[in-house]
Amino acid sequence: MTNSNSLFFRALNKEGLKTPPIWYMRQAGRYMPEYRAVRKKFNNFLDMCKNPDVCCELALQPINAFDLDAAILFSDILTIPDALGLGVNFVENEGPVFKNPINNSKDIDNLNIFNPDELKYVYQAVTNIKNSLSNNIPLIGFSGSPWTLAAYSIEGKSSKDFKKTLNFINENTNKSHIFLNALTDACFLYLREQVKAGADVIQIFDSWANILDENRFNEFSMQYINKLTYALKNDKVTSKTPIILFSRDPKCNNQTLVNNSGADCLSLYWNMQDFDLNIARNKVSLQGNLDPRILLEPKDKIKYQTHKILDKFKDYPGYIFNLGHGITPDINPDNIKYLTEVVREY
Amino acid sequence: MTNSNSLFFRALNKEGLKTPPIWYMRQAGRYMPEYRAVRKKFNNFLDMCKNPDVCCELALQPINAFDLDAAILFSDILTIPDALGLGVNFVENEGPVFKNPINNSKDIDNLNIFNPDELKYVYQAVTNIKNSLSNNIPLIGFSGSPWTLAAYSIEGKSSKDFKKTLNFINENTNKSHIFLNALTDACFLYLREQVKAGADVIQIFDSWANILDENRFNEFSMQYINKLTYALKNDKVTSKTPIILFSRDPKCNNQTLVNNSGADCLSLYWNMQDFDLNIARNKVSLQGNLDPRILLEPKDKIKYQTHKILDKFKDYPGYIFNLGHGITPDINPDNIKYLTEVVREY
Repeated sequence: MTNSNSLFFRALNKEGLKTPPIWYMRQAGRYMPEYRAVRKKFNNFLDMCKNPDVCCELALQPINAFDLDAAILFSDILTIPDALGLGVNFVENEGPVFKNPINNSKDIDNLNIFNPDELKYVYQAVTNIKNSLSNNIPLIGFSGSPWTLAAYSIEGKSSKDFKKTLNFINENTNKSHIFLNALTDACFLYLREQVKAGADVIQIFDSWANILDENRFNEFSMQYINKLTYALKNDKVTSKTPIILFSRDPKCNNQTLVNNSGADCLSLYWNMQDFDLNIARNKVSLQGNLDPRILLEPKDKIKYQTHKILDKFKDYPGYIFNLGHGITPDINPDNIKYLTEVVREY
Repeated sequence: MTNSNSLFFRALNKEGLKTPPIWYMRQAGRYMPEYRAVRKKFNNFLDMCKNPDVCCELALQPINAFDLDAAILFSDILTIPDALGLGVNFVENEGPVFKNPINNSKDIDNLNIFNPDELKYVYQAVTNIKNSLSNNIPLIGFSGSPWTLAAYSIEGKSSKDFKKTLNFINENTNKSHIFLNALTDACFLYLREQVKAGADVIQIFDSWANILDENRFNEFSMQYINKLTYALKNDKVTSKTPIILFSRDPKCNNQTLVNNSGADCLSLYWNMQDFDLNIARNKVSLQGNLDPRILLEPKDKIKYQTHKILDKFKDYPGYIFNLGHGITPDINPDNIKYLTEVVREY
């Protein structure tokens, strides 16, 4: 078991710390030359995710390079839609493309039943990473939120406006809820297996929360996040596992996120600068909030913006340093090193 | 593994046999004094089902007493609703009574997510029974059908007309489908674990098929049986496991059962005397059909009616001898012994 005195666990436990624990969303990724050297051995990105030894190597790269306070499973949130038979491919410069997206309500009837054993390669990766980490570095397992997985599965690819998805849930509201329920059950079983395999913390990525207005966010996204966290908190295997929710710029009030999500920690998107710390204090830990674009600026600007974030969270009980979104491929690894130093020396 | 040359497997493989394999629905039950001796040690029937050693003892009792050709897991179909948090109790002379039945659509939103690990006691019972059986006696695992589990969960108890359930599915059709989907996923995961634990054959009990008219039967029951058998037939663990469907007097034509259920064998209710053997021939095996009430009659009548059934299925490729419903507590075990002899000596 991971030492519960690790900085990351202490922050998740809502303890005020002089120096926050540090990890970065997408800390293993294309911005690192070590990563690109491995990536080019695989045509299809998901094939790489299906190799537990490679996932282990990739997850450890940023830990070794930057001495971070938490590792995260190397995988992709689309493993579940892939297991449901939707045929996920990653196309260069386009992101994920589904061979069999959900086009009509009949497609929902015809979906495979989710079988958690089909994603054994993920659980094996978790175990391999856990066995390779030192005792004081917790390992984060993850899944997409039910809504985000549904949006990808219906849209069939990434999109700016997710028009097809929004039309679909309007026209097929009941079937959409059937789909979201099935995805919620799948996420639960999937995260549970990750915890069994060695994950110490769970992060749920609601990466497409932003495309829903407030009413629809509550109906199609938050309702299922709540059901999922409730199940995790009431299960023998996962009840003690802290849950972090990354919700990308949701159109709901802060109170809803704090009170209804069931998460122990909220990971704040970079544009959520007005998030009211007082309503969250002593209820949830907070994570992130730094605009990753800052890392494309000169060092003095990186330092200035980082200090602003650290000033803001200085007295907050339980803050985890992170970006407000994932590291992009255009960021120089030296700046990640520098950013980490700035936080530790603050 | 069980010898695939066993009579039971040969019949499931649609082989015409001189003597059919024999087992009886509810072959372990209150009609046996050995069973009653164990039963009285437990207040609650489900507590008995949660004891794998006791389940093993009970499952073996009829095998030892009557030298039957197949064993069946000792358990109850309501283990799944119990795991979903509906609080199942068995009340003397009343049957199952739910503490928290589904009363409105909100209750469906609030249901626990099914976690197959909560029913480990069932899988342990399967393993214990399998380890205690000789190699040539296959073991049948089972679950209720999604519809039958839904009907019990909504009605909250057994009923003649299931009025509450029929009203509920009329007034909450969409939520009912959400519930049926969740139950289908649960049945799949549950049966899969039973096969992993050692079950050689699966039987699905659609015990409340009879309360639906033809349209509703297809919409609320058959659709989900089809989804379940499709999942089982496409899963690595269960694809080779024969599936028997017991559908109690369904209001659909025989063709639908044969072609749409996805089952390898249909277990015929006692009143399905006009079932057209020709449309089933070489497509599915058949099982049962004898009226269990016959067993309350004198021996000559038992013999006469049994011969009538055996005459009917004499040339049918793949017939399994069984009753058209479970053995009732009022039946004399001597008549089960006699019935078995009549079939073997035919």
